[in-house]
Amino acid sequence: MSVFAELEALNVLVVGANRGIGLGFVQKLLGEHRVKHLYATYRLTPTPQLQNLADQQNDRLQLLSMDITDEVTIAQAITTIRQQVDRLHLVIYTVGFLHTDEIQPEKSLQQIQPEVLLRYFQVNSIGAILLAKHLLPLLKHGDRSVFASISAKVGSIGDNQLGGWYGYRASKAALNMLMHTAAIEYGRKAPKVILVMLHPGTTDTELSQPFQRNVPPEKLFPIERTVSQLLTVIDQLQPEDTGQFFNWDGSRLPW
Amino acid sequence: MSVFAELEALNVLVVGANRGIGLGFVQKLLGEHRVKHLYATYRLTPTPQLQNLADQQNDRLQLLSMDITDEVTIAQAITTIRQQVDRLHLVIYTVGFLHTDEIQPEKSLQQIQPEVLLRYFQVNSIGAILLAKHLLPLLKHGDRSVFASISAKVGSIGDNQLGGWYGYRASKAALNMLMHTAAIEYGRKAPKVILVMLHPGTTDTELSQPFQRNVPPEKLFPIERTVSQLLTVIDQLQPEDTGQFFNWDGSRLPW
Repeated sequence: MSVFAELEALNVLVVGANRGIGLGFVQKLLGEHRVKHLYATYRLTPTPQLQNLADQQNDRLQLLSMDITDEVTIAQAITTIRQQVDRLHLVIYTVGFLHTDEIQPEKSLQQIQPEVLLRYFQVNSIGAILLAKHLLPLLKHGDRSVFASISAKVGSIGDNQLGGWYGYRASKAALNMLMHTAAIEYGRKAPKVILVMLHPGTTDTELSQPFQRNVPPEKLFPIERTVSQLLTVIDQLQPEDTGQFFNWDGSRLPW
Repeated sequence: MSVFAELEALNVLVVGANRGIGLGFVQKLLGEHRVKHLYATYRLTPTPQLQNLADQQNDRLQLLSMDITDEVTIAQAITTIRQQVDRLHLVIYTVGFLHTDEIQPEKSLQQIQPEVLLRYFQVNSIGAILLAKHLLPLLKHGDRSVFASISAKVGSIGDNQLGGWYGYRASKAALNMLMHTAAIEYGRKAPKVILVMLHPGTTDTELSQPFQRNVPPEKLFPIERTVSQLLTVIDQLQPEDTGQFFNWDGSRLPW
């Protein structure tokens, strides 16, 4: 990983590692020998896939409980990490939802419900900035580091031509603003951190599953491909990229 | 008002009319003889200023109770209006907060509180889109009409150089996304509506009061000036401007 070229030992945190893109990052990063400590968070209990990876790795992969809607659990997980290492070099934040058993993204104004909008903001916008608040001590060091959050191109206001998906779109636009603002503060307090938002492309996960029928096969990425592409983007980040929003191919996305 | 040049009678709704810019719009629009019905909403009780205006106007100015965090009250107010008129031509949405007795905008990540962020989203983002949901029947008509929401330049992600004010910034970015998305849906269902977001400039209201010391006097607008400037912007809107974000001088603002 060239952005970390000068480093022989990397400490990594993946938030939301139970499944999907988060789990894919854990799998991929375990194959990078320079990763010494890999911390991976789950919400309720680890999935068998995540637990199996941990069982194979002794202490190299550690699983931590974190519910990003409960700030206490964020603080606790960070405390645990700080008892073991004094710095992180790569943080991948993947938490977010588009649909649940009870929630479908709105096709029209008529379907808007205020409680649902609040839930989108709580999970998709606020979680990441709470993490940014608590992570600052672990990123205030002299090594180059990257804090990347998975956002979404449908969270681009300027790119929005189709409409619909009010809550999801607005929560990702809010995420972009919150993390762009955090990048400014990090730039003063932890200037070696490159903080970015990444659009992964439509990836074959539970999140996209109900909407895959409208996606041409070549535009539906397997998780491994998405993870490789995003790591390539991360690899090529420059200090002046902090606070920006990137597509999976490394191009800039409009706000 | 040239955008409404072909119309002899205008029905107007001002949401959040108890004080500040909303009250200023009511005062100004009462001086426009073509405004036949002016509906103005307040949250708890009308301020004496708003009540006095209503008392002077017989039925031309009607005051309606509306708490934009309580969807039932939005529906009730719209029902009242629909019992009297079948269309609105101008809607001005001014609800929003930056600070309260309990809430100050965050100067740093350390000051972020999830409940406060949710409150910013609830008031500054969700209220406007709930209004857009319920207003559609009153804007589905053949006359040119404008639905303008007060946003804020600090809600521009691309323009953000200073950082801070996490919740306010994110809630205004989310507002911009929600209303941009609504403009797309309105474009299909109510194509004569021009739906825009407006930055009023720093205006001498309660909202800006604690922050005015850093504002050069010539950049702190009296309410009457802000209202005149925004009405000029509204006046010059073209159909292709729908969904966009304008500064008080009529220039486009970046997302």
